[in-house]
Amino acid sequence: MNKRLAIGIDLGGTNLRVALVTRDGEIIRKEKEPTSEKILDSLFRLLDSIFSEDIAGIGLGVAGLVDREGGKITISPNIPAIEGINLAKEIRERFRVPVFIENDANAAALGEKWIGAGKEFSDFVLFTLGTGIGGGIIKDKKLLDVAAEIGHMTINTDGEKCHCGNSGCLEAYASARAILSKVVSALEKGRESMLIRFHNGNFYKLSVEDIYRMALEGDNLAREVLKEAGRHLGIGIANIVNVMSPEAIILAGGLAGAWDIYIQEAIKEASKRAFQKLFDTVKIIPSLLGEDAGIIGSAGLVFHGYREI
Amino acid sequence: MNKRLAIGIDLGGTNLRVALVTRDGEIIRKEKEPTSEKILDSLFRLLDSIFSEDIAGIGLGVAGLVDREGGKITISPNIPAIEGINLAKEIRERFRVPVFIENDANAAALGEKWIGAGKEFSDFVLFTLGTGIGGGIIKDKKLLDVAAEIGHMTINTDGEKCHCGNSGCLEAYASARAILSKVVSALEKGRESMLIRFHNGNFYKLSVEDIYRMALEGDNLAREVLKEAGRHLGIGIANIVNVMSPEAIILAGGLAGAWDIYIQEAIKEASKRAFQKLFDTVKIIPSLLGEDAGIIGSAGLVFHGYREI
Repeated sequence: MNKRLAIGIDLGGTNLRVALVTRDGEIIRKEKEPTSEKILDSLFRLLDSIFSEDIAGIGLGVAGLVDREGGKITISPNIPAIEGINLAKEIRERFRVPVFIENDANAAALGEKWIGAGKEFSDFVLFTLGTGIGGGIIKDKKLLDVAAEIGHMTINTDGEKCHCGNSGCLEAYASARAILSKVVSALEKGRESMLIRFHNGNFYKLSVEDIYRMALEGDNLAREVLKEAGRHLGIGIANIVNVMSPEAIILAGGLAGAWDIYIQEAIKEASKRAFQKLFDTVKIIPSLLGEDAGIIGSAGLVFHGYREI
Repeated sequence: MNKRLAIGIDLGGTNLRVALVTRDGEIIRKEKEPTSEKILDSLFRLLDSIFSEDIAGIGLGVAGLVDREGGKITISPNIPAIEGINLAKEIRERFRVPVFIENDANAAALGEKWIGAGKEFSDFVLFTLGTGIGGGIIKDKKLLDVAAEIGHMTINTDGEKCHCGNSGCLEAYASARAILSKVVSALEKGRESMLIRFHNGNFYKLSVEDIYRMALEGDNLAREVLKEAGRHLGIGIANIVNVMSPEAIILAGGLAGAWDIYIQEAIKEASKRAFQKLFDTVKIIPSLLGEDAGIIGSAGLVFHGYREI
């Protein structure tokens, strides 16, 4: 009997997200909850409420380094509560269905390959541009089983300190965290900007959306910071183009919304840095599935495993 | 009838190298000639002299971007004479055997996988450390069909000018060309060093071997320059470890000989920058085949194609 549905879980960002997904990649039910310290309790409660006889299996996308075969999360800097736990095994024992575990950005890449912006490509690299920067690599229509921690390529030898302990990482320059920190630090120093009008002047509450909006309206500080972050993203893109020579780079995550300034600057910088012949053939495009890419891709693991999609 | 031999060609470095290789990867005859503008004449002459009825096919490793399927060399900055030429087709028409074409560092990676330092690994990345820096990636026991231009990852945003047109490339800091240029520039400024005793004081004739030898004897300039180059190589290694999470990094090319200073410094730097868990599992080892890796790997293409070795 061919069970109709899979559960896809995204344990990657600020929310825990769980969805019921069909064999065509369609989401028929979706739940989310803010990530907390009791994330495992929340996860099991959500799974209990959504599980049925019609479930073929469960796929998990998790922020951090994942041991596919062992089913373990080796490191998860943002969700330490799940580090070292054999989450796949625990879920398998409770629900008695096949369980797949994968890095969250890898799962998102698989989602985009299955029914998203990557559908037409054999080889692409997904960048997740959010608080941090992650990556997932599709090669020959399959998810490449590598760390793909593209946010932690050093792009500046003696550069800024990164959360990972290294310095000069792409993430330390081009992530939402980096953008917010640059803006706040300028405002603290009294730099003039329309951004000061937001949140009653409490600029610690600014979001990258606020910054992008003001940048579009011509605010100098907002434009400068977004452009500088974009320039660094362009370096990261050029590095990946020169090493992986993909057919496409797919840009996902909240920051990809800042296309007209941040991403345009990145494309301009990458065009200067990558090998011309490689840059000429790569398409740089936005994600199609947005924040659903991870849950769809995780569910896709249940139907396709790590095989060609 | 199973023909016994393949011809492997390495069009990568300062010499054109051609060899007869058995199905076991053993070289039974080897020819080399300095690369010149008439490289194609030399190549065909060598092939004419070495070809026999026992040849199953011909494999070529070529410096630059290679179009596997088309058989063409898209760009070859060091050997412009072969750019744009459909070399595979020309050779195929002349000798009427299967012809394979591949990037030279990729071919070397394949050689190391077949009978060299990479034999035991499913996933590794080869760095070729010479005048320039190249790379080849073995994933799941197969050569990954990507550019692998790891020498042209930007590791320093506003860094030194590179031959490729970009600035801040790994190659601009960690290659033999970069090391020689740093040493010469210091000597031109009158910096004291034992290196001045070589070649009757004509320091433009220094080689990286000279520099390494004097570094081992405690020469400050030689040590400084090699260590600084090694530190930058370490950044390149860390970037590759974080993105490709290989089981091994194999270091080939003349500079890998400077193991005790240049490579040791690189390993130290990479250990600080890469994700600890990834670094703990990666083995950083020297090439086993040395300058024969390319001809062996190119011949291997004839016997194995791009399939699993």
